[in-house]
Amino acid sequence: VRLGFPQARRVIREALVHEGVTPEAAELQAHWLVEAELRGHASHGIQRLPVLLERTRRRLIDPAATPRLDWISDSAIVVEGNRALGPWVGVQAVDALSERAPETGVAVAAVRNANHLGLLSLYVERAAEAGLIGVALTTSEALVHPWGGSEALVGTNPIAVGVPASPHPFVVDMATSEISMGKVLAHRHHQTPLDPRWAVDSRGRPTTDPSAVAALSPFGGAKGYGLALAFELLVATLSATALGTRVTGTLDVEHPATKGDLFVCFAPARFGESDATRAAVDDYLEELRRSPAVDASTPVAVPGDRARARREAALREGINLPHELVAELRGALQASEIVP
Amino acid sequence: VRLGFPQARRVIREALVHEGVTPEAAELQAHWLVEAELRGHASHGIQRLPVLLERTRRRLIDPAATPRLDWISDSAIVVEGNRALGPWVGVQAVDALSERAPETGVAVAAVRNANHLGLLSLYVERAAEAGLIGVALTTSEALVHPWGGSEALVGTNPIAVGVPASPHPFVVDMATSEISMGKVLAHRHHQTPLDPRWAVDSRGRPTTDPSAVAALSPFGGAKGYGLALAFELLVATLSATALGTRVTGTLDVEHPATKGDLFVCFAPARFGESDATRAAVDDYLEELRRSPAVDASTPVAVPGDRARARREAALREGINLPHELVAELRGALQASEIVP
Repeated sequence: VRLGFPQARRVIREALVHEGVTPEAAELQAHWLVEAELRGHASHGIQRLPVLLERTRRRLIDPAATPRLDWISDSAIVVEGNRALGPWVGVQAVDALSERAPETGVAVAAVRNANHLGLLSLYVERAAEAGLIGVALTTSEALVHPWGGSEALVGTNPIAVGVPASPHPFVVDMATSEISMGKVLAHRHHQTPLDPRWAVDSRGRPTTDPSAVAALSPFGGAKGYGLALAFELLVATLSATALGTRVTGTLDVEHPATKGDLFVCFAPARFGESDATRAAVDDYLEELRRSPAVDASTPVAVPGDRARARREAALREGINLPHELVAELRGALQASEIVP
Repeated sequence: VRLGFPQARRVIREALVHEGVTPEAAELQAHWLVEAELRGHASHGIQRLPVLLERTRRRLIDPAATPRLDWISDSAIVVEGNRALGPWVGVQAVDALSERAPETGVAVAAVRNANHLGLLSLYVERAAEAGLIGVALTTSEALVHPWGGSEALVGTNPIAVGVPASPHPFVVDMATSEISMGKVLAHRHHQTPLDPRWAVDSRGRPTTDPSAVAALSPFGGAKGYGLALAFELLVATLSATALGTRVTGTLDVEHPATKGDLFVCFAPARFGESDATRAAVDDYLEELRRSPAVDASTPVAVPGDRARARREAALREGINLPHELVAELRGALQASEIVP
């Protein structure tokens, strides 16, 4: 089913408003879901809407909440999310940091009790477009095994980094697991085998059977595990949020969101960044893009390039949604008395 | 050749002092090399001494220099290394941040014109022992190919993160390449094949031949490349240092060190960390260690555990140095009129 970009956005916004979400928060959440869809990250796209609506009905999301931002110093904020929607909290945090960092050089926000942030790249892209380097981290449900272990004890803990550059900011956004649980489910659905590096069975052995998956593998082996764990500790320690299997509420409709989020903004200008430094970044990224590719049909990419290309194509062509999702949405939206 | 720990330290210190290095800087540099050796990271150990001595003779390292620390705000320092030894600069930066972060919550130092930092883990461990979360990043010579490319254009850009924990701080320290160039050289020396995931030849094809290596592979494929590049841009932008192939001076004896370093310290206490949060970290790390291992003979480890175990063994048993290295050192030390 093909949906136009403005139509998708309107439907999501209205469905959220119908559940009592304030128009500003609903607008941001709709933007986040549609942007994920446009950029080819369906796992963070419109398929998340039924869960968000159900969480709102159950007041695991407080539709009218506004976050509280407490500056604990000139360069650090503790954010109490008050169970508001993730983007509504995250954008306020990033905007507060973006205003402050040009003075202080660096500013940090540690966030608790916010719902799922959605696509991380949008927060750091926002910072980068304001001339800042943005870093975003969030913890998530324990789906990943420690290296050498078999139990799912570590989050898929993604990181996003945005750096100002021309003509486009540099934006990397990645989970620290090899793949998402959504991808395992898709393989199960289509009965296609997994790459054995992606996941393990209940005894910790690499498996190609999507039905036998007990835990996802960290990306890059022991190193990825180390990094995922460092991010988990960094975020949980600063935001006083849950660790490991105690993290809930980003995928389910039963538990409050106990994960934490961390945003850091650095202001290169405050560190004395010159025109030459800025030009050197642009030249370097271009040097990478033009460097010899192993496969001539796939030029070397800079993170963010492919998502941007997908977005441009999707803006022209519309968004393709699977029939099952549309049926599910129709159910949710009819319950909301809004039928698209 | 087996060397005792205090003996190794004394020899290094005296060799550096003989070249005009101030006793304090020489003491730190000796500590850094010996600790790397003790922890099993020979690539950052005593084998680096001949290069450091030669760089000092050529004044690529200024043996008498002290770094200049300029606070550009309450929470950020720009550090001009003045070509001093890396640990002598890095420790002053980290100590300044450790003093400030408990007030400001976060503090950052961007460093330029310092020589090779050596083992990164020691800086963040130092921060963690002071109750802070420490993050250290440094750029390095372009030895890594972009994902899908064949030319060495990205540094091995390591990251280290230290988090306070009991009984030991959590410390992860890792390059963003699959392996080090030192490991390729060791395989070449012993005529043993490489894992094809580790490196590529001049056409970008995975190679098992250590003599055919044109570039190291980023760890974890496209994700590791994205992260390595994010670190390169983050460090270079804030410290106004070189990018890609313009990075020199950590391995050679010909060029000034044009790389940059970045240290960030966060103070959990300032963010309201409680005894419960601290205990939760300790419990979580213990839960990981006790979780079922795939191979019963190799328990699940928390980053830092194995380096600590190696260090304890090496303190008891002494350090083993290859004959070639001892001969090379003897040459260097005789040139310094210090024969061990």
